[in-house]
Amino acid sequence: MENKKIPVGVLGATGSVGQKFIQLLEGHPYFEVTELAASERSAGKLYKDAVNWILSTPIPENVANKTVKECKPNLDVKVVFSGLDSSVAGEVETEFAKKGYTVISNSKNHRTDSDVPLLVPEINADHLELIKSQKYNGGAIVTNPNCSTIGLVLALKPLIDNFGIEAVNVVTMQALSGAGYPGVSSLDIIDNVIPFIGGEESKLESEPQKIFGKYSGGIIEHLGIKISAQCNRVQVIDGHTECVQVKFKNKPTIEQIKKAWAEFKGEPQKYNLPFAPIQPLHYFEEDRYPQPRIHRNIDKGMATSIGRLRECPLFDYKFVILSHNTNRGAAGGALLCGELMKAKGLI
Amino acid sequence: MENKKIPVGVLGATGSVGQKFIQLLEGHPYFEVTELAASERSAGKLYKDAVNWILSTPIPENVANKTVKECKPNLDVKVVFSGLDSSVAGEVETEFAKKGYTVISNSKNHRTDSDVPLLVPEINADHLELIKSQKYNGGAIVTNPNCSTIGLVLALKPLIDNFGIEAVNVVTMQALSGAGYPGVSSLDIIDNVIPFIGGEESKLESEPQKIFGKYSGGIIEHLGIKISAQCNRVQVIDGHTECVQVKFKNKPTIEQIKKAWAEFKGEPQKYNLPFAPIQPLHYFEEDRYPQPRIHRNIDKGMATSIGRLRECPLFDYKFVILSHNTNRGAAGGALLCGELMKAKGLI
Amino acid sequence: MENKKIPVGVLGATGSVGQKFIQLLEGHPYFEVTELAASERSAGKLYKDAVNWILSTPIPENVANKTVKECKPNLDVKVVFSGLDSSVAGEVETEFAKKGYTVISNSKNHRTDSDVPLLVPEINADHLELIKSQKYNGGAIVTNPNCSTIGLVLALKPLIDNFGIEAVNVVTMQALSGAGYPGVSSLDIIDNVIPFIGGEESKLESEPQKIFGKYSGGIIEHLGIKISAQCNRVQVIDGHTECVQVKFKNKPTIEQIKKAWAEFKGEPQKYNLPFAPIQPLHYFEEDRYPQPRIHRNIDKGMATSIGRLRECPLFDYKFVILSHNTNRGAAGGALLCGELMKAKGLI
Amino acid sequence: MENKKIPVGVLGATGSVGQKFIQLLEGHPYFEVTELAASERSAGKLYKDAVNWILSTPIPENVANKTVKECKPNLDVKVVFSGLDSSVAGEVETEFAKKGYTVISNSKNHRTDSDVPLLVPEINADHLELIKSQKYNGGAIVTNPNCSTIGLVLALKPLIDNFGIEAVNVVTMQALSGAGYPGVSSLDIIDNVIPFIGGEESKLESEPQKIFGKYSGGIIEHLGIKISAQCNRVQVIDGHTECVQVKFKNKPTIEQIKKAWAEFKGEPQKYNLPFAPIQPLHYFEEDRYPQPRIHRNIDKGMATSIGRLRECPLFDYKFVILSHNTNRGAAGGALLCGELMKAKGLI
Repeated sequence: MENKKIPVGVLGATGSVGQKFIQLLEGHPYFEVTELAASERSAGKLYKDAVNWILSTPIPENVANKTVKECKPNLDVKVVFSGLDSSVAGEVETEFAKKGYTVISNSKNHRTDSDVPLLVPEINADHLELIKSQKYNGGAIVTNPNCSTIGLVLALKPLIDNFGIEAVNVVTMQALSGAGYPGVSSLDIIDNVIPFIGGEESKLESEPQKIFGKYSGGIIEHLGIKISAQCNRVQVIDGHTECVQVKFKNKPTIEQIKKAWAEFKGEPQKYNLPFAPIQPLHYFEEDRYPQPRIHRNIDKGMATSIGRLRECPLFDYKFVILSHNTNRGAAGGALLCGELMKAKGLI
Repeated sequence: MENKKIPVGVLGATGSVGQKFIQLLEGHPYFEVTELAASERSAGKLYKDAVNWILSTPIPENVANKTVKECKPNLDVKVVFSGLDSSVAGEVETEFAKKGYTVISNSKNHRTDSDVPLLVPEINADHLELIKSQKYNGGAIVTNPNCSTIGLVLALKPLIDNFGIEAVNVVTMQALSGAGYPGVSSLDIIDNVIPFIGGEESKLESEPQKIFGKYSGGIIEHLGIKISAQCNRVQVIDGHTECVQVKFKNKPTIEQIKKAWAEFKGEPQKYNLPFAPIQPLHYFEEDRYPQPRIHRNIDKGMATSIGRLRECPLFDYKFVILSHNTNRGAAGGALLCGELMKAKGLI
Repeated sequence: MENKKIPVGVLGATGSVGQKFIQLLEGHPYFEVTELAASERSAGKLYKDAVNWILSTPIPENVANKTVKECKPNLDVKVVFSGLDSSVAGEVETEFAKKGYTVISNSKNHRTDSDVPLLVPEINADHLELIKSQKYNGGAIVTNPNCSTIGLVLALKPLIDNFGIEAVNVVTMQALSGAGYPGVSSLDIIDNVIPFIGGEESKLESEPQKIFGKYSGGIIEHLGIKISAQCNRVQVIDGHTECVQVKFKNKPTIEQIKKAWAEFKGEPQKYNLPFAPIQPLHYFEEDRYPQPRIHRNIDKGMATSIGRLRECPLFDYKFVILSHNTNRGAAGGALLCGELMKAKGLI
Repeated sequence: MENKKIPVGVLGATGSVGQKFIQLLEGHPYFEVTELAASERSAGKLYKDAVNWILSTPIPENVANKTVKECKPNLDVKVVFSGLDSSVAGEVETEFAKKGYTVISNSKNHRTDSDVPLLVPEINADHLELIKSQKYNGGAIVTNPNCSTIGLVLALKPLIDNFGIEAVNVVTMQALSGAGYPGVSSLDIIDNVIPFIGGEESKLESEPQKIFGKYSGGIIEHLGIKISAQCNRVQVIDGHTECVQVKFKNKPTIEQIKKAWAEFKGEPQKYNLPFAPIQPLHYFEEDRYPQPRIHRNIDKGMATSIGRLRECPLFDYKFVILSHNTNRGAAGGALLCGELMKAKGLI
């Protein structure tokens, strides 16, 4: 059993998140992609013919010639990673779970379900207990947060634990890959900024409340910090940059904050999971850092980069964070959830 | 006299701001560029040979063949517009003023002088009274604010007047032309964000205090609102976008704010100055607006565009502003200062 | 009649070319947009509600509140400008012509019809004679060429007339707006070049043959020069840049070529048409010119910029051209066709 | 000796090519960077303090704290890789060679020296014989070609060998990193193309003649094919795209060409050198390939990607190539030269 990989399926395999799942799962020590499912239009075709592959590494050979199936719960696996579009993810994922599949999803649909973990393995591994409450006949649904949430909550976690936080203000400059493919038209973003991303601000204001929530008796008690988010799309391919301001319960010194970040580790680091960043948070002393093109790929694109920590006239401190939105913020994050579940014997 | 144009000089004529002055002054109804001054390296050359012209309209013919002079106060004009680099602007402008020239400057050096107006014609035209206190033998120095300040203060002015403001939080996404030419290397900004602009945040936190200050007895009493600024460089050629949050003294409704913006006018509009925007503030109802490429050129690039006014969980409201940084934010803004001074008989 | 504007319709009014027609026709001295037609999905809506307006000037007020109709030949005008997608343009335009409308089209569908002029007003105004052969009961179809063709043929015309041309080699670097909206995904073009544009190379190799053809007895005898084209998409919003090499019948000197370009004028200049460039061809001596961002808007975006004329080791000469692809290369070019037809009494 | 790495120095260590040398040499199996030399301004500083590091991987630790020396021939190594600016490279490299150093240079200065190999290891490894003729007291100079040349000659090599070539036409779309750092201003290239790169076209027309030349009796007899080059700068960070047209001596079929490309290997592949691409030439069947962002990093950025092979109305065939300009085209190419020399016992 130790030596045998767990066969997994990818739902929404031809989409941009699905492609990323397939890219990251190539040669994975725990999992092996054996089933691909996508829309009716793609079903029945070889994957290489169905997909408009947009990543900069080639389609893994063992996947290229697999036949794509429909997103019906008759795949020959027990675990599926879902990169389904939110227009269909809700129902399809429910169907799979009801048929006994473990669904690890990057889609937003089930994130707010009270019995579904919104999982960031370094932060709230204990929320996996929620699965027990799920009414899916042995199936389960686990979700990972929105791409703009993940970098923020990782940077905030050691601050909440060590000093307590009252309020967070965040303004994002988000990458284009976060909008999927084809996503944003080149004519809309070249020499431009789009100061709006539909639904993004409310996700960023609410998801951390659940992620930082306390699990107790089958329930997540949401954290009650105040968060205000403003989300912008900028001309960057990968990597969300966020300007963050924090009001603490007990205001620490700058050095205390840097120390808390430097020492932060979670379950993925303890289990030494394949996609766990060795060091989840990297602080840069240079004023001009972090930058998406320079830092997004640090530690497999799974680490969060931080810089410019300084006093704020309105809050206590302000700083800048940078997180890879399709690695850590989507497929890579979901994959880490899967790895954690495997390590904990849940799949 | 009515029919004769005022001859003016441009200091730093070959730089990016100097070029913009020359572009905007072409065919100007009040002013005519008759003197060009730049560094020693350029002095003695024809302007067209000295300049690396980077604007998208050709060099005005009457300027192209003028000989560039050194930046010495022996130009045959009484008024100079200064686009000098801040490494030399302080001293050179002082020298000119002492010799009796009126210097209207876009450089930062004299902005904080207690007897120098930091002028935004729609906001603090009365600050021109300060000139009387200047010890320059009939010469004078007037400055306009930093490119990231100007859009913000225009949007805030009617809010301060009507409702009072306690605190402002602003995160900018600034255009590349704000860094001059050659400025930012293409390798530093393509597929990237630079979350730092040297000195910018402190300007943005302090300049509004003076601009909104009360003139009284030869002194400007700075306004005491709290401002926190975070400044980023993004891949946009022209047009600074800013995410703004405001805490009011008396919280208005959304409709009251929109009304205040719509009705806002100042002296430039009363005098009908050539570079005055007909309507200084434009509010857009579309969620995705304002955008730099779409709105930066509205009303000669002199208007401020605003959008996305909405409630904020931490402040009272948040919204987005957009202002052209080299038109309104640099040469165009300084030119409007000159026009106001002409209208008021100060030059 | 002289003083009254000709009412016109725009087919495909909500598309990117349709929008450009509407933008350019605002305040036009000959024409007034009174009818808007688009797909069923848009029909019945106000234009401002039906359109996703992507241009940087606002929707003309007199158009914004017009109701969009279906593309059926029951519009209350005699002349329509067509920006229809090529998937439907062929049939719809034929229908309109058969019902007596004059259709001036930017679509490719009828360009190769033997009785339809492929009109570049400066080059082959005499091809309008073809209309007489059309079997449309008083209706007519006139087309303008592909956006990559137009700049090339304008630069070649005086060379063909004065020196004769045997062969032309052209490699294009084309702007994104040529692909329509949403067109090219930002993820496909940022930090990238796409060395392929479907169908473009064959258009560029064949259209000049018809444009330069000799009208005689109701027939266009195609010119028989050899052309090889390679087309690339680059990250430019507007303006196609083309590297051109020419083998002449009688090799001129560099000065003779520049003179031929400088002196070139055609019927639009003689009639002084509103959208005629005052000087169709601009030669720049600077090595680094022409450039799309600097030169695309010269003379209403209707002129062609040329530079870098130099000897070629394989052909006789090589040079670079630059032409605005949505002004001269699409709606503006079609509009100029309409103006010529009006000047000639054909509409 | 087998197990000990050769200590090497990097000349121009703080420049963009120097940085790339240091990045690529990290953990290299043959070489170890032990000496860093740069301009007077940097000499005496720690490397991490002297350099404005612009690459997206961190400075190798063993290099970061080395002290930078002046570019004087008193470094404690026998082999230096030179990324010196061409303004100083000529003299400095000569000095080093005269003192007995082997200089492997990416600079242009010595490329045209009749006794200096212009080395592309897959193509003209035999040109290393030239070193014997050099009058440098045991020192030597070896150069690698210009970044726009290297991809072209690799693609042409098997065609010349198998079918003979008469003429080559090439139009390039070159990446910004080819201009060094800070290189091209962002204001010059965003939403733009620059159809000129100083000196580039003549290099691209002449260097292949020497590279493909026949070594015989201490002399390289240049190949006499006709080449015409047109060079453009586009908004791409890394990766030169080139549209190539070829006239053959014996026109092959498309399949014959593809076969020649697929089978092409040279000495680096035989010696299995660390930086040798496993397969030097990759042909893609998709119309839209190759593309810089997708293909530039194939095989360590050392392979050339090719696509769109098709008949040409003017030449025999046309196709598109793509080559990484700072890996294969600069530091990586020079490093491969060094590896070949080590394999041949020349260093």
